[in-house]
Amino acid sequence: MNGTSPATDGTMDGFQRVTVIGAGVIGASWTALFLARGLTVTVNDPLPGVAQRTRDQLRQAVPALRAIGLRDGLDRDLRFEADIGKAVADADVVQENGPERLDFKQDLFARIERATGPDTLLLSSTSGIRATAMAQAMTQPGRLVIGHPFNPPHLVPLVEVVPGEQTDPDTVRRAVAFYTALGKKPQVLRKEVPGFVANRLQAAFFREAVNLVVQGVVTEQEIDDVVTSSLGLRWAVAGPFRSFHLGGGPGGLPYFLQHLGPALEDLWRDLGTPTLDAATVELLSGQADFGATVEELESARDEAQIRVMRALGED
Amino acid sequence: MNGTSPATDGTMDGFQRVTVIGAGVIGASWTALFLARGLTVTVNDPLPGVAQRTRDQLRQAVPALRAIGLRDGLDRDLRFEADIGKAVADADVVQENGPERLDFKQDLFARIERATGPDTLLLSSTSGIRATAMAQAMTQPGRLVIGHPFNPPHLVPLVEVVPGEQTDPDTVRRAVAFYTALGKKPQVLRKEVPGFVANRLQAAFFREAVNLVVQGVVTEQEIDDVVTSSLGLRWAVAGPFRSFHLGGGPGGLPYFLQHLGPALEDLWRDLGTPTLDAATVELLSGQADFGATVEELESARDEAQIRVMRALGED
Repeated sequence: MNGTSPATDGTMDGFQRVTVIGAGVIGASWTALFLARGLTVTVNDPLPGVAQRTRDQLRQAVPALRAIGLRDGLDRDLRFEADIGKAVADADVVQENGPERLDFKQDLFARIERATGPDTLLLSSTSGIRATAMAQAMTQPGRLVIGHPFNPPHLVPLVEVVPGEQTDPDTVRRAVAFYTALGKKPQVLRKEVPGFVANRLQAAFFREAVNLVVQGVVTEQEIDDVVTSSLGLRWAVAGPFRSFHLGGGPGGLPYFLQHLGPALEDLWRDLGTPTLDAATVELLSGQADFGATVEELESARDEAQIRVMRALGED
Repeated sequence: MNGTSPATDGTMDGFQRVTVIGAGVIGASWTALFLARGLTVTVNDPLPGVAQRTRDQLRQAVPALRAIGLRDGLDRDLRFEADIGKAVADADVVQENGPERLDFKQDLFARIERATGPDTLLLSSTSGIRATAMAQAMTQPGRLVIGHPFNPPHLVPLVEVVPGEQTDPDTVRRAVAFYTALGKKPQVLRKEVPGFVANRLQAAFFREAVNLVVQGVVTEQEIDDVVTSSLGLRWAVAGPFRSFHLGGGPGGLPYFLQHLGPALEDLWRDLGTPTLDAATVELLSGQADFGATVEELESARDEAQIRVMRALGED
């Protein structure tokens, strides 16, 4: 995006062998990206049929990966290993996507730590558990950092890199180098907050969207149309602060805040605080008719997403 | 956008002569769009030097208009008329962009009403005043409806069409026809709520963005990077409901709400409620360094915006 050129020349900063733990939707998408970037991937997942299911998911990612210029021989460097110790033994990087349970992850990373050398980079895709808590059973908690992707990781650039209290700064530096070499846009957070940044912003936005549907101002489809024809277009090219900076004219954000801040605060006071009670879930579910199957919609979204990313990468 | 083809063949549904009241940033941008679509425009603005200033602003819009395929002979069909009665006398449409003061707009629309025939479509760009209130001094309040653009109107497709309590349904229908013929994406709101839809969603999003900067989780520039590399890209192609519908897998939005709703509500409870007090404004203003002049940033944003719109219009 915007001029970042992924390392397709093999210079992956010494990261060649990646172990993906948990081959659900996120794990399979990471696997597709890693393979497409020329890395060797070992998938660890105890579920029966994982190899076939993963290969099916990889096939689905091929058009997207091909469209953004990646090679597509996705199963050349892929193997499956159900034993966790063997799966991580020679890994340069571990990207974990297991169940979102603290006890599970604590135990898992303690075992991974014992089965790997000190230089193996340990990354968790968790969206809800802090690295500080996750590392509590490790002897070297400095080795673990969160690398939380925005779904699907093979397509959307953002990765939130969230260190725990004991994460070694060098682990953060190496995680950023790894994701950057993959062509991703890593963003390091300075504090461990629930939901990190993107999901918090999304939650705030969705809360008011729910409120406007509940109040009968617009339908779900109408909100979606409003967003794709205004804020989405805008925020694909300039984030909220830059947008308001430009909204302030020559005086920029300081002028904007001084002159339009009070009106903004009036709106803040008027925003809704809906809950997802049974009646609201029923209302929202009842409007959820998007005119095609989820699979068709997803395919159309990904194609459009790729067109937008290519448009922005031209500069 | 997405296959909408503006009426460039002259079939503007009988809307040929437009009067733009108030030639500030919004009024000039509307003027550029109307002229580019082949309409005849009369600008009414009492400020001295308005003709020169408007022509300067139109020149700035030319690259954007040319890039999205419009003709650029922008001052062929443009005239200036300082007398409000004369300015609107033969108008098919009036698009008002005057000061955001209720008494001013009430008086203005009462005068416009007297100076125009009953078929002249009366539209206000207001972002903050309800049509119900604005029409109170009119004898035919049914003729007035809000047509609130997302800035800049010559570039961003959304127009929020917000009827007042007494707005005639036929006025709403004609406003939608007019904006659609211009290639815009009009969205009719069912209720008059402060900030309408887009600004409320934007305010909710910005409130949490401010909170995350105040809490020291990320800087302004980092938030902007997070947004352009994830949510912005996503929402340019699929709005929040469709996105969560796809996030629910084959079960769609109902599945998503049942299974991830509680986690979402946890985040809602954790969102910040900052104020724009002096210290916060100082903090935010202090970080407002975007590495270029506002004019340069705006030009870069508009160019990127056009590339994104073209990418999405290809389907």
